[in-house]
Amino acid sequence: MEDCIFCKIVRGEIPCSKVYEDELVLSFLDINPFNHGHTLVITKKHYETLFDVPDEDLKACAVALRDIGRAVYEASGADGLNILQNNYRAAGQVVWHAHYHILPRYKRDGFITSWPTNPYGEGQMQEMLAKIRDKL
Amino acid sequence: MEDCIFCKIVRGEIPCSKVYEDELVLSFLDINPFNHGHTLVITKKHYETLFDVPDEDLKACAVALRDIGRAVYEASGADGLNILQNNYRAAGQVVWHAHYHILPRYKRDGFITSWPTNPYGEGQMQEMLAKIRDKL
Repeated sequence: MEDCIFCKIVRGEIPCSKVYEDELVLSFLDINPFNHGHTLVITKKHYETLFDVPDEDLKACAVALRDIGRAVYEASGADGLNILQNNYRAAGQVVWHAHYHILPRYKRDGFITSWPTNPYGEGQMQEMLAKIRDKL
Repeated sequence: MEDCIFCKIVRGEIPCSKVYEDELVLSFLDINPFNHGHTLVITKKHYETLFDVPDEDLKACAVALRDIGRAVYEASGADGLNILQNNYRAAGQVVWHAHYHILPRYKRDGFITSWPTNPYGEGQMQEMLAKIRDKL
């Protein structure tokens, strides 16, 4: 995609602090890190969301996330690490090119560690399950 | 693992609202959902964190996350969707068996959509990059 910032990084038109690259995957430091060492893993081809990414690209990302995640965890000396992947604006997606965040975490660093729950009412859980299975 | 709650679910000793199962992956509704449709994808074998999961299991999870994620997104009528994977307590891990959260998201539902940034000082970004690449 001509105007996509991540495609421009893949093509070398915008520089990046490259962590890793192979045929399908590019990884580089986020220039606006939540914590130092915050790293992105992106597909080299342009797909808008996770739902658009073919199997081979997904698999390459999954292995890269483990290996780069471990390296980020060790290099940063963090206490923990999240993988976060956002689809659509309501989930925090701001670049329309599928990507994963590797987030080194420290105790009480202000990012989520837990969340409020929204319990299912009578019958709602089975109803949701049926709806999801129907879409699979 | 005998005492692991997710291993007990895999063995059928604890029931679950099963969304999907194959040779390597099990997926079921989270009983304490952040939003209705909140779904877990776990490896059927016991691995403590992402860093311990072999390639084949990672790849199976990656494809399942896309397909189940899409089904959850469509079934829930959500505005967005996150994949979140937590390693170690500081990152929110509470069950010591590798798993991914599929989180349907709604506008202003109170979960993260953005985060404060912690800019790199002079030379710190290159230093972090070198450390990470050294660990790869």
